[in-house]
Amino acid sequence: MISKKEIKYLASLKQKKFRTINNEYLIEGEKLILDALKHKQPIKKIIYSKKGQHFDTIRKKSKILKIELCLSTEKDAQKISDTKNSQQIFALLKCIQLNHLNLVKTDNKKPMIIIDGISDPGNMGTILRTCSWFGCYNIILTNNSVELYNPKTVRAAMGAHFHLENIYKDSIPNIISYLEYHQYQILTADLKGKNIENFIPNKKYWALILGNESNGISKEFQNISEAIHIPGKGKMESLNVAEAASIVIHYLSKK
Amino acid sequence: MISKKEIKYLASLKQKKFRTINNEYLIEGEKLILDALKHKQPIKKIIYSKKGQHFDTIRKKSKILKIELCLSTEKDAQKISDTKNSQQIFALLKCIQLNHLNLVKTDNKKPMIIIDGISDPGNMGTILRTCSWFGCYNIILTNNSVELYNPKTVRAAMGAHFHLENIYKDSIPNIISYLEYHQYQILTADLKGKNIENFIPNKKYWALILGNESNGISKEFQNISEAIHIPGKGKMESLNVAEAASIVIHYLSKK
Repeated sequence: MISKKEIKYLASLKQKKFRTINNEYLIEGEKLILDALKHKQPIKKIIYSKKGQHFDTIRKKSKILKIELCLSTEKDAQKISDTKNSQQIFALLKCIQLNHLNLVKTDNKKPMIIIDGISDPGNMGTILRTCSWFGCYNIILTNNSVELYNPKTVRAAMGAHFHLENIYKDSIPNIISYLEYHQYQILTADLKGKNIENFIPNKKYWALILGNESNGISKEFQNISEAIHIPGKGKMESLNVAEAASIVIHYLSKK
Repeated sequence: MISKKEIKYLASLKQKKFRTINNEYLIEGEKLILDALKHKQPIKKIIYSKKGQHFDTIRKKSKILKIELCLSTEKDAQKISDTKNSQQIFALLKCIQLNHLNLVKTDNKKPMIIIDGISDPGNMGTILRTCSWFGCYNIILTNNSVELYNPKTVRAAMGAHFHLENIYKDSIPNIISYLEYHQYQILTADLKGKNIENFIPNKKYWALILGNESNGISKEFQNISEAIHIPGKGKMESLNVAEAASIVIHYLSKK
């Protein structure tokens, strides 16, 4: 049985402060844990109070990977859970280190998604999920974006965290230097941009900047990016940033 | 100054039970209230404790429309707010009556979106926002879908509630009868469907069924709908339903 002290520690990881200090986060639910096991994530231990339909598979895989399984009471599981209808099974993972871009060495030549000040963790997670669906595994976060390991981000991303190949966090000037050095075609979705239907990407490698929900992309990015526009015909002022991202990434991915 | 009794009533509207009994809901924030005023929504009163940058416009428009403005204390405004960083201005609105479909009379001949058991209010709201962006104002909800006036739905919809032209709630057999009677092309997004790139809609009026986040569309709809698929190349099992909706509605809207 897991100790009270450990439960207290795991519950503390709901707070950003403790995730940052300890560089660890929790995932919740059997499917997410199975996906983490499949993608060889750095799982430190698995905590459970209920056994669901995939529990035996989780136990077998954990045994092979020498991951400890800890039983907890239902009451304790509820303390560490971040959801209302908890499956009461959790895994403790190490956070990926978010490196700075290295101008010369970091050369992936694949589509790049720049998350520029996205503030809603649900949007962030959904965008990561969409990126993973379309095979965009290279992500750069600006310093003012919501935390990658916010529990709502992790939940909405549905395992996209485990698929990321290259993820960076850097200042806007460094991101611009990097994108320009590697000759990315720098794009953004904006109401004043070119109609997406008439837009033909002109370079193999594009970078898409996704801006803040209220304020759009940062000023510094405005001068160096080409804006594309998803034409609407309704009464709505704008699309949600995650929706715009899905439409643009789908469009660019099929080219 | 607004009475304690009224504050208690307004705070009760956070709960579905009281929204249903009273057929009223609250919206929060200046932009949403301005949009509701613009679209002539049935606003009963406006409650505020803070004056933001649009307050004067709200006051002027309310005066013309004879809508009462009620001052509250900050503490009371916090009680009725559903957000962390409240703008502390609210409007009390009548809910739209969700009628059943009328087989013969309800003939709009416009794209139709069927929300079939969507359970996450954020997804529901985002889908409504996307529908409004692309000018799809006809919506049918199945009986097991999340409530239209859930505060999270309202927040994510960003005013789409005010743009809806025809919104119905009915049983699946009635929805099917309606769609077939009016010869809609009935579509759904599904992993096993035709590639969207090769899909050519064959009728002017399409109906898109959007299913539950975990279980997809209802069985009854499976036999009568054509599935289209958004090809991915990643490691992700599926797209979020709101993202799939955005991509498909964008695709169908431009045809």
